Amino acid sequence: MVVPAGGEGHQLAAAAPVVALRYADGALRALDQTQLPWHEVELELRSAEDVVGAIRRLSIRGAPLIGVAAAYGVALELSRDPHALERACTALVAARPTAVNLAHAVARVRAAVLAAGAAGRAGEAGAAEVALAEARALHAEEEAASDAVARHGADLLAGRRRILTHCNTGALAAPGRGTALAVIAELADRGGLDLVLACETRPLLQGARLTVYELERLGIEHALVVDGAGAGLIAAGEVDAVVVGCDRVAANGDVANKVGTYAHALAAAAAGIPFVVAGPCTTIDPACRTGAEIEVEERDGDEVRAAGLWRDDPLALTVAGTPCRNPAFDVTPAPLVTALVTERGVAAPPTPESVSALLGS
Amino acid sequence: MVVPAGGEGHQLAAAAPVVALRYADGALRALDQTQLPWHEVELELRSAEDVVGAIRRLSIRGAPLIGVAAAYGVALELSRDPHALERACTALVAARPTAVNLAHAVARVRAAVLAAGAAGRAGEAGAAEVALAEARALHAEEEAASDAVARHGADLLAGRRRILTHCNTGALAAPGRGTALAVIAELADRGGLDLVLACETRPLLQGARLTVYELERLGIEHALVVDGAGAGLIAAGEVDAVVVGCDRVAANGDVANKVGTYAHALAAAAAGIPFVVAGPCTTIDPACRTGAEIEVEERDGDEVRAAGLWRDDPLALTVAGTPCRNPAFDVTPAPLVTALVTERGVAAPPTPESVSALLGS
Repeated sequence: MVVPAGGEGHQLAAAAPVVALRYADGALRALDQTQLPWHEVELELRSAEDVVGAIRRLSIRGAPLIGVAAAYGVALELSRDPHALERACTALVAARPTAVNLAHAVARVRAAVLAAGAAGRAGEAGAAEVALAEARALHAEEEAASDAVARHGADLLAGRRRILTHCNTGALAAPGRGTALAVIAELADRGGLDLVLACETRPLLQGARLTVYELERLGIEHALVVDGAGAGLIAAGEVDAVVVGCDRVAANGDVANKVGTYAHALAAAAAGIPFVVAGPCTTIDPACRTGAEIEVEERDGDEVRAAGLWRDDPLALTVAGTPCRNPAFDVTPAPLVTALVTERGVAAPPTPESVSALLGS
Repeated sequence: MVVPAGGEGHQLAAAAPVVALRYADGALRALDQTQLPWHEVELELRSAEDVVGAIRRLSIRGAPLIGVAAAYGVALELSRDPHALERACTALVAARPTAVNLAHAVARVRAAVLAAGAAGRAGEAGAAEVALAEARALHAEEEAASDAVARHGADLLAGRRRILTHCNTGALAAPGRGTALAVIAELADRGGLDLVLACETRPLLQGARLTVYELERLGIEHALVVDGAGAGLIAAGEVDAVVVGCDRVAANGDVANKVGTYAHALAAAAAGIPFVVAGPCTTIDPACRTGAEIEVEERDGDEVRAAGLWRDDPLALTVAGTPCRNPAFDVTPAPLVTALVTERGVAAPPTPESVSALLGS
């Protein structure tokens, strides 16, 4: 069941933060990200199958957000069939096999249900309640982590009034207010922000579609730029800090993030402004020593050859079948990172020692 | 009159260099760049008005190419009306008022016609012939300059087998083989090239539409990448040199070029590979002391808010009316430029002295 909200010329609702996921009245309600920013459609998900479908279609995206959605998915399925635990967990984990947060979240809810059953605390009807409580707990923890990232980042960036960011790192990517965009929202809440430059983030345009939408909903002044304009605007003195999220952080502080990030880091270093990376400690991979060990996913060339893959009729941008390279990420070396901001505090600069200290605390 | 050549799924003709402009059988024949790479349509231009229209519609683009087209335009109009010199010149110069090459080319043809008239060498019928001879001479000079740029660049880059480039700098931008893409074509002719990475060049996608088309026609191995992927691929060791064109070069060697160029220069410097700028000496502006004096044109935000402005129905990429910043160019400081390659030789590195020497020789 969907609640459509306007066409492509649609005026957005008055400024209010985006709620990407909420559990209410026995259903998980998720904003369909494939239809943003043109249509605000809330999906009503009532089974594991519904959640798997929404994750597969990328209606729900962002690794932490997928994890929380899947946790609720276990609870939803148990409320339909108390014997469905293993089947639901298997289906949910398979929805996006490479998403580590998803597997962790599902395993956590499963363990809680099994433990309650073993302790005789949950009968057939109670299993769903145990799962729901665990999903809610995970959700609340992630929201608290987002708030902590936001506070630490805003403390660090006080006085930096013009921020450039890349990709989407807000409420549509992670529970609560997100990561880098949570820092930006907190700066704005404190009255410390003049302008956010949002890079469009080719090829999939998460900046143009999702970050601009979130900034508008938050009532934060912003301007959209093509990715190639970031470095020049930084050099021209129009940016006071760059703030981005991260997909994976190596033990030495090297950062893998959405393709296009590294150029902003180079420009920030050349201009002498901070380049700040924000994300939860779960993004740090202590088994990965340096960025050189991070395998960069190469995605389908169709993403480069066209724009608007969210439509039935994407726009061809080049000769049909043109060979493409399409790395999903790039790696920014730790020496270019001014600070790594997590819910546990800040590694400034990130080094093997400062990163290890975050994990140990 | 047009010669259509296939739909969007159309297979291009066998490898052959692109001829953007040619004068034959009393007409200027120009490839309609607004329809590339999907439709290879040759426009047949028989009057100054035809040429003005083609320039206005961006069917002919690239400052040096526009200049040559306008020179032929004077001749075409004089062959229709021997008294049309002043009217034709005024109309052609007004087609794109900021294009300096256009004004220079038209003034040169006009001066030749006036001088021939004053000397009694050209009667009414002869004025068109004088104009055509001058247009052909200009065209030939520009082609020779392109060849010289190509040779000097290829000498410099011998052994660099994987090249990254930005925007379109080939036969579709300048007479002959172009500038940076002429260097690349010459490297390929010498058997010295494995792969060209072509950046798509948002917002107007000249790389995706035009450079890919030219590389395919030239039979040069290539891959298209989003602009943000350039720096990461350079850092990953997948590029041996960056070669780009230039819109304006300051007396100290600072280079203004298509937005997105500066990030590639930073990445090249960090990786220790050459960053080479190619263009004719007419691009050097000795009156402009440094890049700080170059005013960067801010273009319409619609270019950022959408893709496919060459179509009747462009694709919206973001919330309608989103504020944008859209600088057309960025400035790469001379210390990041390994060499400036011109038809008169190479400034390596460009400095006030080496740049001045090019102009003085």
